[in-house]
Amino acid sequence: MTSNTTEKEHAAPDQGADRTPVTVIGLGLMGQALAGAFLDAGHPTTIWNRTAAKGEGLVARGAQFADSVGDAVAASPLVVVCLTDYEGVRGLLEPLGDVLGGRVLVNLTSGTPREARETAEWAGAGYLDGAILAVPEGIGKDALVLYSGPRSAFEAHESALSSLGAGVTYLGDDHGLASLYDVSVLSLMWNILNGFLQSAALLGAAGVDASAFVPIATKGIETVTGWLPDYARQVDDGVYPAYDSTIDTHVAAMRHLVAESEALGVNAELPRLIQDLAGRAVAAGRGGDGYAALIEQFRKPAPA
Amino acid sequence: MTSNTTEKEHAAPDQGADRTPVTVIGLGLMGQALAGAFLDAGHPTTIWNRTAAKGEGLVARGAQFADSVGDAVAASPLVVVCLTDYEGVRGLLEPLGDVLGGRVLVNLTSGTPREARETAEWAGAGYLDGAILAVPEGIGKDALVLYSGPRSAFEAHESALSSLGAGVTYLGDDHGLASLYDVSVLSLMWNILNGFLQSAALLGAAGVDASAFVPIATKGIETVTGWLPDYARQVDDGVYPAYDSTIDTHVAAMRHLVAESEALGVNAELPRLIQDLAGRAVAAGRGGDGYAALIEQFRKPAPA
Ligand SMILES: NC(=O)c1ccc[n+]([C@@H]2O[C@H](COP(=O)([O-])OP(=O)(O)OC[C@H]3O[C@@H](n4cnc5c(N)ncnc54)[C@H](OP(=O)(O)O)[C@@H]3O)[C@@H](O)[C@H]2O)c1
Ligand SMILES: NC(=O)c1ccc[n+]([C@@H]2O[C@H](COP(=O)([O-])OP(=O)(O)OC[C@H]3O[C@@H](n4cnc5c(N)ncnc54)[C@H](OP(=O)(O)O)[C@@H]3O)[C@@H](O)[C@H]2O)c1
Repeated sequence: MTSNTTEKEHAAPDQGADRTPVTVIGLGLMGQALAGAFLDAGHPTTIWNRTAAKGEGLVARGAQFADSVGDAVAASPLVVVCLTDYEGVRGLLEPLGDVLGGRVLVNLTSGTPREARETAEWAGAGYLDGAILAVPEGIGKDALVLYSGPRSAFEAHESALSSLGAGVTYLGDDHGLASLYDVSVLSLMWNILNGFLQSAALLGAAGVDASAFVPIATKGIETVTGWLPDYARQVDDGVYPAYDSTIDTHVAAMRHLVAESEALGVNAELPRLIQDLAGRAVAAGRGGDGYAALIEQFRKPAPA
Repeated sequence: MTSNTTEKEHAAPDQGADRTPVTVIGLGLMGQALAGAFLDAGHPTTIWNRTAAKGEGLVARGAQFADSVGDAVAASPLVVVCLTDYEGVRGLLEPLGDVLGGRVLVNLTSGTPREARETAEWAGAGYLDGAILAVPEGIGKDALVLYSGPRSAFEAHESALSSLGAGVTYLGDDHGLASLYDVSVLSLMWNILNGFLQSAALLGAAGVDASAFVPIATKGIETVTGWLPDYARQVDDGVYPAYDSTIDTHVAAMRHLVAESEALGVNAELPRLIQDLAGRAVAAGRGGDGYAALIEQFRKPAPA
C-alpha cells in the first residue's frame, strides 16, 4: 500500500501530512485502534502481536504483520507500543538492543512516572512516553494523547502522531510527565464520579432518583469548571482572595453535609474528609480566604 | 410605581408576566440581589431589613421600605425571606402569627432539610423552602433557584419567582428537598475542587503549574460529565455494565495514584479513600462491573 493509493481510498484527516511508515506492537483493544487510525490516515503500517490472530482485521485493511517483533521494529522509523504493562514492554523490547537505535519508540502503555523514567534508561535517546486519555473508540477522533520525553523525537513525528486523536499534547522533557498527567486526570475523574455517587446516595435515601439529579449536577459541574482557570492562577501565585465565599462559609455548609449524611445513614467518609481538610485550613488561619487556599493542605501529607 | 410605568422604564425580561407585589425581608448581599431582580422585572417591591441602611439603594430604585417586619409581610401576597440562618427567620417571623396566613412565604435562607421541615410546621400552608445555587451576581441572570413544598403555593407564584434566575425548579412536596439538593450540589462541587487541588498538588510537586493542567482537566471533566446520565440510569436500575473499564481496571490505576502521591509527599488521604471504596466494591464481588456499582458503597455507613 502506497500513500498515494491510500489517499484515494481514505478520507485522510490530514491531507498533506507526512506518510511516515509506522509500526504498532501490541494489538489489544487499544493497539488495534491505534493501528487502525494510522491506516486510516494513510501510513504504511506494520503490526505485531503475541497472539497473531488479533491482527487479522488490520491485515485486511492493509497492514503488514511482521514475522517477529524485531522485524516489526526494524520496519519503521516510528514504533508505537501498547501492552498491558511496562514489564511486558521491557520483556519484549529490551532484548532487541541495537535495533531500537535511531528510531523513535513511543510507549502508550499505562504506568507510573517511575516506570516511564526507568524505560527511558534502556530504550535509548528516541524514547517518548505517552498516555492515552480516551477509550479505544476515541482513537483517531477526539482522543487526548499526551507525550513526554525529548522534544526532538516528538517533533520528528508530531504529524504522524496527530493521526491518533484530536491534536497532540507535548508536556516536556521529563519522561514521567505523561503518566503523571494521566493519573492526575484519572484522579479528578474519580473524584467527580465519587462526588456524584455520594450525592446520589444522599438524595436516594430521601427517595430522589439519581437521574433527577443529573441536570442540576451538570449545571453545578459547569459552574465549578468555569472557576478553575482562576483557582489555578491563585494556586500558582499563592494568593487566595475570597470573591464570594470564604472557607469559613464553606465549613458551615460542610457541617450540614456531614450531619445529613449521618442522619440518612449513607457513607459519610468523603463528607468528613471534605470537612476535615477545610477545618485544617481554618486552623491554619485561612478561614477568611477563598477555597483555593486548601492547596496548602493537599501539598503535605495528612497530619499524624 | 405601577406595573405599567415599570414596563416602560425597564426592559422587563418577561413581558406579559404577572406583576405580583412582592416583599423581600433580609437585605444582605443576597437579599439585595433578590429585591433588585424583582424591581428589574417590574414587581411592586416592599423591603425590610434589621439594619435599615442596607435598603437605601433599593429605595432609590423604587422599592418601598416598610415601617416594620409585620407591615412588610402584610404588603404582599408573596414574601421572600433570606437571612443568615433559620434561627433568625424563626425569631423574626414566628411572632407575627396570623399575618402569614393566606400568603406564600418563600424562605431562601440556607439550611438543612430538617430545618426546612421544622419551619413548615409553624409557617403555615403557604410555606415554600428554597435554595439558591448561585452567588448574588447570578440573581436575575443565570442563577439556579430550587423550591420545595406545596405545589399549589409554587404554581401561584411561579411567574414572579422566575424573575430571580434562569428558570425555576420545583422539586416536590417534601420541604426538605431544596436544601437536600443544595447540599448535594455543594458536595459535588467540593469534590471537584478537591480533585482538582489534589491533582494540582501532585503535578506541582513535579514542577508543573496548576494553570498548565487546566485545559486537560477541563477536557476530563467534560468527558466525565457526559457519562452521568448513563451512570445515573445504572444507579436507578441497579445494573452496572462495564462498557470499557471495569472496577478491577480502575483499582490498578488507583494504586498508581496512591503510590505517586506518597512518593511525592503530597496528601494521600483522598487517593487512599478512592482506593478503599473501590477495593470494597471488589471485595463485594463487583470488580467486573462498571464504576457506577460503587453506589452500593456510598449507600451505607463506612465499615467499622
Ligand atoms: N482500553 C482502554 O480503554 C484504555 C484506555 C487508556 C489506556 N489504556 C492502556 O492501554 C494499554 C493496553 O490496553 P488494552 O485495552 O489494549 O488491553 P488488552 O486489550 O488487554 O491488550 C493487552 C495487549 O498487551 C499484550 N501483552 C500483554 N502482556 C504481554 C507480554 N508479556 N508480551 C507481549 N504482549 C503482551 C497482549 O497480547 P495478547 O493479545 O497476545 O494477549 C495485548 O496485545 C494498557 O496499558 C491500558 O491501561 C487502555
Ligand atoms: N451570598 C451568597 O453567595 C449566597 C449564595 C447562596 C446562598 N446564600 C444564602 O443566603 C443567605 C443570606 O446570605 P447573604 O450573603 O445575604 O448574607 P449577609 O450578607 O451576611 O446578610 C445576612 C442578612 O441576614 C440578616 N440577619 C441575620 N440575622 C438576623 C436576625 N437575627 N434578625 C434579622 N435579620 C438578621 C442580616 O441583617 P443585618 O443587615 O441587620 O445584619 C442581613 O440582612 C444565607 O443563608 C446564605 O447561606 C448566600
